[in-house]
Amino acid sequence: MNFSRRVTEMQESPIRKLVPFAQAAKANGKHVYHLNIGQPDIETPTSFMDSIRNFDEKVLAYSLSQGMPELIDSIIQYYKKYDMHYEQDEILITNGGSEALLFSIIAVADAGDEVLVPEPFYTNYNGFSSAVDVNVAPITCKAEEGFHLPSKAFIEESINPKTKAIILSNPGNPTGVVYTKEEIQILADLAKEYNLYIIADEVYREFVYDGLDYTSFGNIKEIEDRVIIVDSVSKRYSACGARIGSIASKNKELIKQILKLCQGRLCVPTLEQVGSVELYKTPDSYFKEVNAEYQKRRDIVYTALNEIPGVLCKKPTGAFYVVAKLPVDNAEKFVTWMLKDFDVDGATVMLAPAEGFYATPGLGKDEARIAYILNEDDLKKAMYTLKIALENYPNKTL
Amino acid sequence: MNFSRRVTEMQESPIRKLVPFAQAAKANGKHVYHLNIGQPDIETPTSFMDSIRNFDEKVLAYSLSQGMPELIDSIIQYYKKYDMHYEQDEILITNGGSEALLFSIIAVADAGDEVLVPEPFYTNYNGFSSAVDVNVAPITCKAEEGFHLPSKAFIEESINPKTKAIILSNPGNPTGVVYTKEEIQILADLAKEYNLYIIADEVYREFVYDGLDYTSFGNIKEIEDRVIIVDSVSKRYSACGARIGSIASKNKELIKQILKLCQGRLCVPTLEQVGSVELYKTPDSYFKEVNAEYQKRRDIVYTALNEIPGVLCKKPTGAFYVVAKLPVDNAEKFVTWMLKDFDVDGATVMLAPAEGFYATPGLGKDEARIAYILNEDDLKKAMYTLKIALENYPNKTL
Repeated sequence: MNFSRRVTEMQESPIRKLVPFAQAAKANGKHVYHLNIGQPDIETPTSFMDSIRNFDEKVLAYSLSQGMPELIDSIIQYYKKYDMHYEQDEILITNGGSEALLFSIIAVADAGDEVLVPEPFYTNYNGFSSAVDVNVAPITCKAEEGFHLPSKAFIEESINPKTKAIILSNPGNPTGVVYTKEEIQILADLAKEYNLYIIADEVYREFVYDGLDYTSFGNIKEIEDRVIIVDSVSKRYSACGARIGSIASKNKELIKQILKLCQGRLCVPTLEQVGSVELYKTPDSYFKEVNAEYQKRRDIVYTALNEIPGVLCKKPTGAFYVVAKLPVDNAEKFVTWMLKDFDVDGATVMLAPAEGFYATPGLGKDEARIAYILNEDDLKKAMYTLKIALENYPNKTL
Repeated sequence: MNFSRRVTEMQESPIRKLVPFAQAAKANGKHVYHLNIGQPDIETPTSFMDSIRNFDEKVLAYSLSQGMPELIDSIIQYYKKYDMHYEQDEILITNGGSEALLFSIIAVADAGDEVLVPEPFYTNYNGFSSAVDVNVAPITCKAEEGFHLPSKAFIEESINPKTKAIILSNPGNPTGVVYTKEEIQILADLAKEYNLYIIADEVYREFVYDGLDYTSFGNIKEIEDRVIIVDSVSKRYSACGARIGSIASKNKELIKQILKLCQGRLCVPTLEQVGSVELYKTPDSYFKEVNAEYQKRRDIVYTALNEIPGVLCKKPTGAFYVVAKLPVDNAEKFVTWMLKDFDVDGATVMLAPAEGFYATPGLGKDEARIAYILNEDDLKKAMYTLKIALENYPNKTL
């Protein structure tokens, strides 16, 4: 039996092929510090389960395709704190940020069209695009520049009549970059000049460190009709398993078009929406605490990386990731070696090789993403283990 | 700003444009009997909420992309009762039957390919297909024949090298048809001869009346590598708001390909899976009760329809729908008239005009779908109201 070209060509998760090595390591009694995944260890606010436990409808019926009005209202109130102003008919609730991205891509690009994406990028941008025959055109960003954007002229070279949108995450997964106001403005100018949408994945909006200013695309009034804000409760409230995301846009006609896609899948789960109404009411003190915790972890990781000879890594300022250039021949081989042939006192480390986060062939081979989602103690041990691993790896380049 | 061709051309829900008329009727104090929607009134088994209330993980983490092993196991056990035998790596949990359909279509058809669908069909087959640039080629079925399939030779005429799959619901939404073993065998033979997949939407599997035999595509061993079974807890356990569906196929490589799409959207909500594990353990006595209730309702609707002069409708034997040919110029106009200009003792009826369930232009204009999802008393009153409406409609054709 044949499969479609689009599904066969779809990239597998770059982390997934290393999972069997991690499982084997654990089966052999090795402890594996998982710095490879984006699953936070922070507790989900209890308001989520509390409100779900109180749900007592006898029939678990379909909810509205657009989403529960109470949840949309809760999100409207949340956005106001960031000087982003949306109305009820400018927001759609989706199955996670994932569906928000997929539907946005379908709505702005036809088969054969292109989307511009700064690389390294969240792998699924490529996955969703190729599933619906849209091509990703990468804008290469460099570790040496902390993965900030290249010049306007450089980006411009990648734009052609097939280009329909720029997709980016800010703060960035996998890089931890937070774009400056100037960078946001450059993209806004390009969007206007070349008639592009901006699909702004801002699910890490609160995860910005060092007191840095954060500019949302929802704050750039002059291009509000071409901005699609993608959001999610997953990282914001450590509720990855809820799968509640959203699309917000001042372009009401766009929302109407995407609503047709929402109607096709009928609705998003009722209970998870009930819980998320409360999540979006979580007091700001929660973010302060979580933020302080992540900033501390970021410092541990960044400091440790900079003490390892040959590692290149500018200080990341957002999300809970960093991409570091390692003094190794090949990061995937290095991670495989750590899992198979290395340990310090029975423990080893798993990172996500960064090659899969690039669309340009050959890039990122000596880079890896580190997610700082472990507690302080474990994180310190993990970074120490990584240091020793880099000293002992037989194919190091230093 | 422009939108993609595929989203702008996507059909809106055929029921949705009548909703404002229903809202206006209610605002004017009219009671509206909703026979237009597929939201059952049966209570959801309490085991669903009970197990969710007991969920006490501190972090609501991502679950596996394939789905929770416990839920997959629960579904495996459920299938065994129907002599359908699946293994853990032959089932994927999806966001409702909707996502199961969308992912199946993406996996077997590329942009420009075709899927054969008996019409009238569940509108979203068309919606999902067009969203991913797949064309629906209808196999026209007729009210006069109870919407059973035409001859093998007739179906064959619609097959061409672009045809990749046959999609159908059995029991049928919107028609209530249950295909005979012979009809299933004809489709199986065609699938084999022309190298097609069969995407079998069997979400109404238990809703079969009159003690009729039911043949699942999961029982046709000779084509097991080309069969994709789509299922859902929505109708089966009256849990439409849970959005838990599944894909089952003996074609392990196909499951692996679709798993890549599942990985792209990370996972299905954790809590809803926890609840669904229990739903799939619901004792068979539940189906017996529910079945008896629906059969009683089916009898009320069918008897009432046959007593109305000019109505054509063969006895439906499955799901909770029937498509009837009405003695009116245009079913949409008729339903609009009922909502705007008609009532019996302050009550009126809403049906789903059937034109939107057809892909062939012009078909179904004088047909409507009736969903029997009201209790006995209300259903009797609704059918009486419909009878009076047909007597009084100014543009009747009889």
